[in-house]
Amino acid sequence: MAFLLPDSSIENKSYNGNRLVYVKNPHLDLMDEDILYHLDLGTKTHNLPAMFGDIKFVCVGGSPNRMKAFAQFMHKELGLEGDSKDMKDICAGTDRYCMYKVGPVLSISHGMGVPSISIMLHELIKLLHHAKCCDVTIIRIGTSGGLDMIFLQPPPWKSSNINMTTHSQLESNSVLNMGIEPGSVVITDIAVNSFFKPQFEQVILDNVVIRSTELDQDLADELLECSRHIKNFPTLVGHTMCTYDFYEGKAKIPIMLKERKKERKKERKKERKKERKKERKTTINPILQKPVQIN
Amino acid sequence: MAFLLPDSSIENKSYNGNRLVYVKNPHLDLMDEDILYHLDLGTKTHNLPAMFGDIKFVCVGGSPNRMKAFAQFMHKELGLEGDSKDMKDICAGTDRYCMYKVGPVLSISHGMGVPSISIMLHELIKLLHHAKCCDVTIIRIGTSGGLDMIFLQPPPWKSSNINMTTHSQLESNSVLNMGIEPGSVVITDIAVNSFFKPQFEQVILDNVVIRSTELDQDLADELLECSRHIKNFPTLVGHTMCTYDFYEGKAKIPIMLKERKKERKKERKKERKKERKKERKTTINPILQKPVQIN
Repeated sequence: MAFLLPDSSIENKSYNGNRLVYVKNPHLDLMDEDILYHLDLGTKTHNLPAMFGDIKFVCVGGSPNRMKAFAQFMHKELGLEGDSKDMKDICAGTDRYCMYKVGPVLSISHGMGVPSISIMLHELIKLLHHAKCCDVTIIRIGTSGGLDMIFLQPPPWKSSNINMTTHSQLESNSVLNMGIEPGSVVITDIAVNSFFKPQFEQVILDNVVIRSTELDQDLADELLECSRHIKNFPTLVGHTMCTYDFYEGKAKIPIMLKERKKERKKERKKERKKERKKERKTTINPILQKPVQIN
Repeated sequence: MAFLLPDSSIENKSYNGNRLVYVKNPHLDLMDEDILYHLDLGTKTHNLPAMFGDIKFVCVGGSPNRMKAFAQFMHKELGLEGDSKDMKDICAGTDRYCMYKVGPVLSISHGMGVPSISIMLHELIKLLHHAKCCDVTIIRIGTSGGLDMIFLQPPPWKSSNINMTTHSQLESNSVLNMGIEPGSVVITDIAVNSFFKPQFEQVILDNVVIRSTELDQDLADELLECSRHIKNFPTLVGHTMCTYDFYEGKAKIPIMLKERKKERKKERKKERKKERKKERKTTINPILQKPVQIN
């Protein structure tokens, strides 16, 4: 509970004029082999620069089936040769995640929840480091599990002068909500935790390490601009809440444990402003994205 | 951060002389249909009492492949008819979890991390409720991802007079450790969080709800007694830590983000006592097990 360690452990090094994904952990270079266990890859068993060196976009999502479908969609969009049905799962040797490479695009599943996505992103970013990738953009594409809400007043933490230069995340809004049309695509500009704070807490050896959940605003703007050329997909920019639980964390009615107090729910609605989505993975994602992507 | 809600929302009702799994949420009985979305099951689409009413043991673990292998093992152990290779995944319609039924035993995967297992356990316990199951025991069987440690002094929270009547969890210890033989089976008697406290925190509408991580001591003793009849498996009773992260949460060296401070690690070793394992799912598991199992 004591120290708040600064978050300065990844940096981008200029490399052949490009921005190299570089992980600032001296142990990595000292290791004889780095086994990316949950991806079924390793520095000794695989030629990572040859396999992944040309990656420019990494798209991640929870469901393995959906990420396979996305890879097949990208295969068609990019006009690549061969049958997309023959696409091989690079992580076939493990049942934890699936991974497909389509030209410069990597499509990976991350399971459900912060711990699951954090393992994947941890190993993914080390993979990009070992593969000497440059100028990589990571985008999460997924559904939002919770009820969306729009409020007219500014969020409470806005008054604390938090600098929100942001990265971006694409979310498909598949639920009924207050103010957002079902089926809308929401581009996340700010990720907040269960207390509506734009931060992520990690406990390391009894220390609570607090990290910013900054996202890339330029990328969010660019994605919004792209959406204007696509019909039939209402797209908007919004905030996303990351909870640690799908049922109680999102205060759903058909939960297992107990009846929710309606009074408390109403009270919270008054306090919460401009909150649009509740999601379980968002705060960890931007933390890990930020240093890897453009910045 | 304000309220600490009491945990009294599940109870066991006497039913035909047995202990029925009963979820004390009045909304459940009012719902026209309860869709257990991530299990691809529902009260309208499936006859849950007919499908699951005879379940007495539920064994859960992270990996789908392992839980299939466990189901096949149980099929053989129970001497059931038919070929275990033909076993059908009950959750085949979703790619979130897998589920196999072998006589009175249900084998289910839960993915990685607390949010992932909490979704599965949430829907599982509602499933047992809808199926009117009686006298159900839930056991997690899995590997431990972290370094095990044994300390000679009592744990720091021991002095706070926490009542540790416990439930049980079976864990396979697959890593090198300080004092425990690799390959040992550890039966968890106490689950602690990242701060070594025997509690689980859930944020619900800005409230931190704290729940006990009690486990069933009688079941732990029974499992230990069973282990004495199995050779070649060193088995012991120990505590298990639940972290929210596989790499930083467990303070591993080949992490992505930053170099760990060795001094801090040494300092923590002095403070932490009798801690044996670090795990990502344990604190949520006993919470949900407790009211369902024997008690």
